Amino acid sequence: MVQIPKTPAPGAPAPRSVPTSADVARLAGVSRATVSYVLNNTSAVRISEPTRRRVHEAAKELGYVPHAAARSLRAGHSRLVLMPAPTIPVGRLYGQFINELQWALSRLDYTVVQHGSVGLHGDEAARAWAELRPVAVLVPGAGLGPKGVAVLKRSGARAVVTLGPETVDGAHALLMDHEVVGHRAGRHLYERGRRRIGVVVPEETGLEAFSQPRLAGVRAALRGTDATVTDLPLAYTEEAGARLAARWRELGLDAVFAYNDEYAMLLTRALLDQGIGVPGETAVIGADDLMLGRLLRPRLSTVRLELPSGRDLAELVDRAVRNPAAAPETHKVLEATVVHRESS
Amino acid sequence: MVQIPKTPAPGAPAPRSVPTSADVARLAGVSRATVSYVLNNTSAVRISEPTRRRVHEAAKELGYVPHAAARSLRAGHSRLVLMPAPTIPVGRLYGQFINELQWALSRLDYTVVQHGSVGLHGDEAARAWAELRPVAVLVPGAGLGPKGVAVLKRSGARAVVTLGPETVDGAHALLMDHEVVGHRAGRHLYERGRRRIGVVVPEETGLEAFSQPRLAGVRAALRGTDATVTDLPLAYTEEAGARLAARWRELGLDAVFAYNDEYAMLLTRALLDQGIGVPGETAVIGADDLMLGRLLRPRLSTVRLELPSGRDLAELVDRAVRNPAAAPETHKVLEATVVHRESS
Repeated sequence: MVQIPKTPAPGAPAPRSVPTSADVARLAGVSRATVSYVLNNTSAVRISEPTRRRVHEAAKELGYVPHAAARSLRAGHSRLVLMPAPTIPVGRLYGQFINELQWALSRLDYTVVQHGSVGLHGDEAARAWAELRPVAVLVPGAGLGPKGVAVLKRSGARAVVTLGPETVDGAHALLMDHEVVGHRAGRHLYERGRRRIGVVVPEETGLEAFSQPRLAGVRAALRGTDATVTDLPLAYTEEAGARLAARWRELGLDAVFAYNDEYAMLLTRALLDQGIGVPGETAVIGADDLMLGRLLRPRLSTVRLELPSGRDLAELVDRAVRNPAAAPETHKVLEATVVHRESS
Repeated sequence: MVQIPKTPAPGAPAPRSVPTSADVARLAGVSRATVSYVLNNTSAVRISEPTRRRVHEAAKELGYVPHAAARSLRAGHSRLVLMPAPTIPVGRLYGQFINELQWALSRLDYTVVQHGSVGLHGDEAARAWAELRPVAVLVPGAGLGPKGVAVLKRSGARAVVTLGPETVDGAHALLMDHEVVGHRAGRHLYERGRRRIGVVVPEETGLEAFSQPRLAGVRAALRGTDATVTDLPLAYTEEAGARLAARWRELGLDAVFAYNDEYAMLLTRALLDQGIGVPGETAVIGADDLMLGRLLRPRLSTVRLELPSGRDLAELVDRAVRNPAAAPETHKVLEATVVHRESS
């Protein structure tokens, strides 16, 4: 039970006490155990419909809300699934995935919370998450190591699932390797006859986990061919776009994979303003298949990403929680396809 | 302490037990109370530096992580600040605000979690949040009513802060009324000599809380003038944009506030494709001051929003937690200014 502290601020009225399951039991005329069975929907114990109704009515009248932490202390584990909250803006696609995942997990009676871990990294973040004693932890991106996984498991997490480029010892892995995105883009530009290929690498912090594998993917796609790959650091400002476009002809590039559609729009504008023809002189391809890219003239070519289904991931979590000793599963889940429009 | 249940899955190895503060006390050769004082940084009790070090080393060796829920059960309240996780994609501006807020709260020793409340609304959501026994709850948008606030307070929340268009009984309010955004846009278009003004109302679910006050703001700005206001429902697809542009001349509008920059880019493209001059025949203004709007030709006029500082909000939360009996504070925090470019 959470008690409001006994020393209220000066001048504060005496706080009302928080209703407990004992209060509910008293009002309903049943035992505390019965209250617990009814409100936690325990199927192992048969309780008559009238008793069930009496408990629910008493809980409603008193405004009683079960306490997740106390319940998990009793049960030995929580139903809390923890994810770090994203620290960079998430697009529509990823947002939909997260919504679907949360919805599917809540249908399985889990509570999903996103932990605001700004400024915490790797195993340090894992310790902060462990304090909430989640039953499962989902970690997008890189950064969590085997030590962090061990801290979480020692603190009672029955499943740790990473969504990133690599597997981590002790954790289930949904492999989301962004190399495939760069690979598709590089291959496409090569097939369109381009040989001197630039790759935009955003200077914004937090994007390295995506930009580096995308760059590596372009390199991998063109290895052993006669094409060259040039990385192009770029900030997300008009001025930076203009500066890059101003030295474009020096660079001698005939194509660019611009990291994503937003950077592609920025760079296309700057190239057109410099009188550089797209796709005539330089082919441009982005990624993410944003609606806005279709509005560009020339219409923007892009790499469309396909994320795993939130429902499948929810089922993996539930399976892992039920059988924490099972060997970690690994699934490749990121797919990518080129959407060829006019800019490449 | 969280215990791994005693009946592991068939074939599972015997689970290692979770280290407790008693284990730390034993290894360090001190009392459990001393462990608690040291690890919770209690300033009320003086503990020698060597003892402090011994406790930290023992905790590290055992991989002991304090249990937030157990600690809050002892302390009588948690340090958990809860927010509902956003269910629509958040832009860069709002994302930065949330990051800054989380950072500032963690500096004040709070843990911020975003609760995945997909599918839960109003007071029903409040009950789900209450189960985690947060010490403070921050609720963006509308939907939480006085009943929900009461449920949260009865469950031990010392502060409930809404960030929305209206105050709610019992809660502190940061008034973020999007009417001001529409008001600025409507006034601007009127001052540019426009009189037949359309307002885009997105058909996407989840945006009503923003689109309706923006529409009302345009109406308020033009009340008592000779201008007319026409609401224009619009889906976020190329086809919907083209359909609206095809009947543009029937509508007889000479200006449009397009809800935000993304819808403004969609509609501008469709209008230009129909041969309708922007701004000659129709002035267009968006909102959010996206970088991409500057890349349009004509460059997109926009309404720039200014959110409160995350640090100020963190301080309000801390003040409210320390003095839960203080009268609710109300602050107007949303500012908006027109950035006039070429499209209006």
